[in-house]
Amino acid sequence: MSNKPLDSDALDTLFRSARSHSYWLDKPVTDEQLHKLYELMKWGPTSGNCTPARLVFVRSQRAKERLKPSLDAGNVNKSMTAPVVAIIGMDMEFYEKLPRLFPRNPAARTWFEGKPEKIRITALRNSSLQGAYFILAARSLGLDCGPMSGFDNEKLDVEFFPDGKVKSNFICALGYSDASRLHPRGPRLEFNEVVQIV
Amino acid sequence: MSNKPLDSDALDTLFRSARSHSYWLDKPVTDEQLHKLYELMKWGPTSGNCTPARLVFVRSQRAKERLKPSLDAGNVNKSMTAPVVAIIGMDMEFYEKLPRLFPRNPAARTWFEGKPEKIRITALRNSSLQGAYFILAARSLGLDCGPMSGFDNEKLDVEFFPDGKVKSNFICALGYSDASRLHPRGPRLEFNEVVQIV
Repeated sequence: MSNKPLDSDALDTLFRSARSHSYWLDKPVTDEQLHKLYELMKWGPTSGNCTPARLVFVRSQRAKERLKPSLDAGNVNKSMTAPVVAIIGMDMEFYEKLPRLFPRNPAARTWFEGKPEKIRITALRNSSLQGAYFILAARSLGLDCGPMSGFDNEKLDVEFFPDGKVKSNFICALGYSDASRLHPRGPRLEFNEVVQIV
Repeated sequence: MSNKPLDSDALDTLFRSARSHSYWLDKPVTDEQLHKLYELMKWGPTSGNCTPARLVFVRSQRAKERLKPSLDAGNVNKSMTAPVVAIIGMDMEFYEKLPRLFPRNPAARTWFEGKPEKIRITALRNSSLQGAYFILAARSLGLDCGPMSGFDNEKLDVEFFPDGKVKSNFICALGYSDASRLHPRGPRLEFNEVVQIV
């Protein structure tokens, strides 16, 4: 059960050639693809297997109209033209499921009960990890992503999560990009600016 | 520049067969591997290309002794025996680098100046995304991971980030696992518990 390293094409698809997209081809994303995507991303590790991420795939015209008023101006067109926009949310009551998700420690729920700041940090950290698994799982399946933080979280939550249990983290357009319309890639920090080996 | 979907072996390495590990073979992780790991993970998307993650690879015996007092009891042995433990930190002054990282909008720094709560959420969200890119990049290179949240962040920060600019997010053991010593895999939530298509 050792890890077989990925080949160079796969590293390109996941990391080196992948880009964040804003322009989309008129090609749908199917239910089957969305199922495959979840069945991959679900395996990514989270602390205590807490898996707080909850997903809404906004695909119909009607649902897109519900999303639109929450978006920053610069994110409207790329969201409305994308085949799907995924809302990556976080269940703020994720710890209620720990007896089932983390059976090794039946008391795991008590790590969080009555600790709102710990709940908040754990939900944000782990749903973000899962959001990254989502992005890389989508790329693994040949889909292009356009992740966005530019929207009004509270407004979106009122519309899509009215019971208040789930809060939005970020959103991500999904589809097949028009790669002829990319802006220049942003630079990255050098190894020595980011990394220490001690 | 379309995404070539990954083959089944690669999906196993990244997601389906991958596990979080606690027992390690006595086989080192080289400087070259740590460089390769950063050169992959750095490409993962972050909001406004803010890339707040900062990494410390704890590899020497002396550095491990500095780490040890911060660890929860259950994480001591697996960390001390791992070839490397990575500290995934977040630069709380990440926005100072935006003029260089996000040249499209020279005013991007002002989105954050004087907004400590926005800084905090953005740093945690995006360094967590980058932490997930780190985990999947390590697996892509054939390395095994053991991510952990069970440690005293403040104690660790005093020891490894004394200037207060960087805060720890989570830590991750890195190496080659002894796969004969795995506990049973935690269950995952079903598609219909997590996902809505609207």
